[in-house]
Amino acid sequence: DHAPKAHLIKLGTMGEYGTPNIDIEEGFLTITHNGRQDRLPFPMQPGSFYHLSKLHDSHNIQFACRIWGLRATDLHQGVVYGNHTDDVAMDPGLSTRFDYDAIWGTVLNRFCVQAALGLPLTVYGKGGQTRGFLDIRDTVACVRLALENPATEGEYRVFNQFTEQFSVKTLAEKVRDARAAHGLTTSIVHLPNPRVEREEHYYNAKHQKLLDLGLQPHYLGDTLIESVIDIVERHASRVDPVELEQPNVDWRRGGTANWRRRPVVVSSKTPSPTVARAREKERRVAQTR
Amino acid sequence: DHAPKAHLIKLGTMGEYGTPNIDIEEGFLTITHNGRQDRLPFPMQPGSFYHLSKLHDSHNIQFACRIWGLRATDLHQGVVYGNHTDDVAMDPGLSTRFDYDAIWGTVLNRFCVQAALGLPLTVYGKGGQTRGFLDIRDTVACVRLALENPATEGEYRVFNQFTEQFSVKTLAEKVRDARAAHGLTTSIVHLPNPRVEREEHYYNAKHQKLLDLGLQPHYLGDTLIESVIDIVERHASRVDPVELEQPNVDWRRGGTANWRRRPVVVSSKTPSPTVARAREKERRVAQTR
Repeated sequence: DHAPKAHLIKLGTMGEYGTPNIDIEEGFLTITHNGRQDRLPFPMQPGSFYHLSKLHDSHNIQFACRIWGLRATDLHQGVVYGNHTDDVAMDPGLSTRFDYDAIWGTVLNRFCVQAALGLPLTVYGKGGQTRGFLDIRDTVACVRLALENPATEGEYRVFNQFTEQFSVKTLAEKVRDARAAHGLTTSIVHLPNPRVEREEHYYNAKHQKLLDLGLQPHYLGDTLIESVIDIVERHASRVDPVELEQPNVDWRRGGTANWRRRPVVVSSKTPSPTVARAREKERRVAQTR
Repeated sequence: DHAPKAHLIKLGTMGEYGTPNIDIEEGFLTITHNGRQDRLPFPMQPGSFYHLSKLHDSHNIQFACRIWGLRATDLHQGVVYGNHTDDVAMDPGLSTRFDYDAIWGTVLNRFCVQAALGLPLTVYGKGGQTRGFLDIRDTVACVRLALENPATEGEYRVFNQFTEQFSVKTLAEKVRDARAAHGLTTSIVHLPNPRVEREEHYYNAKHQKLLDLGLQPHYLGDTLIESVIDIVERHASRVDPVELEQPNVDWRRGGTANWRRRPVVVSSKTPSPTVARAREKERRVAQTR
């Protein structure tokens, strides 16, 4: 009642779609069935309770647009990588969180941390899990594009917000190859998958609408991977090695053994040689400041 | 963790589907798109926040079945009519609620109350709104059939639980005709629709699975309509006439004028002649007990 012309820009997720065996469209799909046709919301199969909560938001917002004529853009965002935008880079105090654990973290972050510490890259299951990805700079650009090109009255629209799709295995290989270019050897190991998800599946998601609005993608290259690894190396002593071991939540069994006795593990654990070296290095750097 | 073999029977609603321009299947739809095919959740467009909440339940339950191997039956129920089952009829103390207002009530109940009081039947908008309906006795039978034929491990299944579909206008005509058979005249009026919904639309929802399990439907006939009207007539003095006037919530504008000043209206209002007669009659009946 107070701002009926407001334009809601919602940061949603590609995870609402799940991994259907058909092409993923941007929010809606024209379906022909028994000789009749309608343009309907794309059928959703979210892959976690987090993604379910985003789907509930989507349905609620869509309803509000239909009933009250509100306008909304639902950005179905892929997995974000990268740490810096031009603005954030202006001052270390503007640095953002860097999550690499099994719950909040994202897979490329984990691989970069593991590579920086000389640990094997841990792929969950077969690694054929494929998702859409984008650079943090493109995230900011996409939100801006949505803002500058608002939805019309009563319109609920969905933009699939990612620039490239990769399998987890492909990402691990990219990190390994980026290291190999500098003569560094990185191994890849497959862990039992703590999640319940398809490990080999079809995946082809459309992402045209933001390109049509003028998005200039930053594609994932060695430079980006190296810059993330570089940041991790500078802060290697702050890495929690427990987070990098077997993931601490198993979807089938709940918390794992590691997770349940974690306080004990953390206090008694001897750091790996790599972590010990990194801590020593940071201590020395701190002393010379 | 405590009852992994439990079978959840969820009372959901046909309202999760909305009114798509294609046939409504029972929970899932095989979709062919760009030469590929998948069986996916039927695309949902719930028509109110109540129905949205049921849709959120459906997605959460479906996920739990997929991840933890739980078993669930989601009964997408239509609009229920009728007051009695054999069990409830055994004693007046077992009587259930009878809702006829614009929020909790259902349309056939409202029409029966209006017919009993000699008031016009109020159709919201054009009255082409079409939904699935079923007798309360069939509701009980359906839950029993789901219970006796449980879902398998990890299965999330949907039964569309209704026996016939009617438009609101058709229901009004059925009530009018049932009264006419006894020489009583009933008029039908169209009010501005307080809701936001399609008033003329395609509607063809499948409801085969419960029939396959052995459901013997009680179809809507004059006898049922007359029995409901009869019950209302016996309790006519307890009808709140304000509830039967212009619906007290308007989806576009919020509460209506009537709703906002309702306490005053109720206390100062003179009952309509019909209501006054009914109250007098009940008073006399009470005195002779």
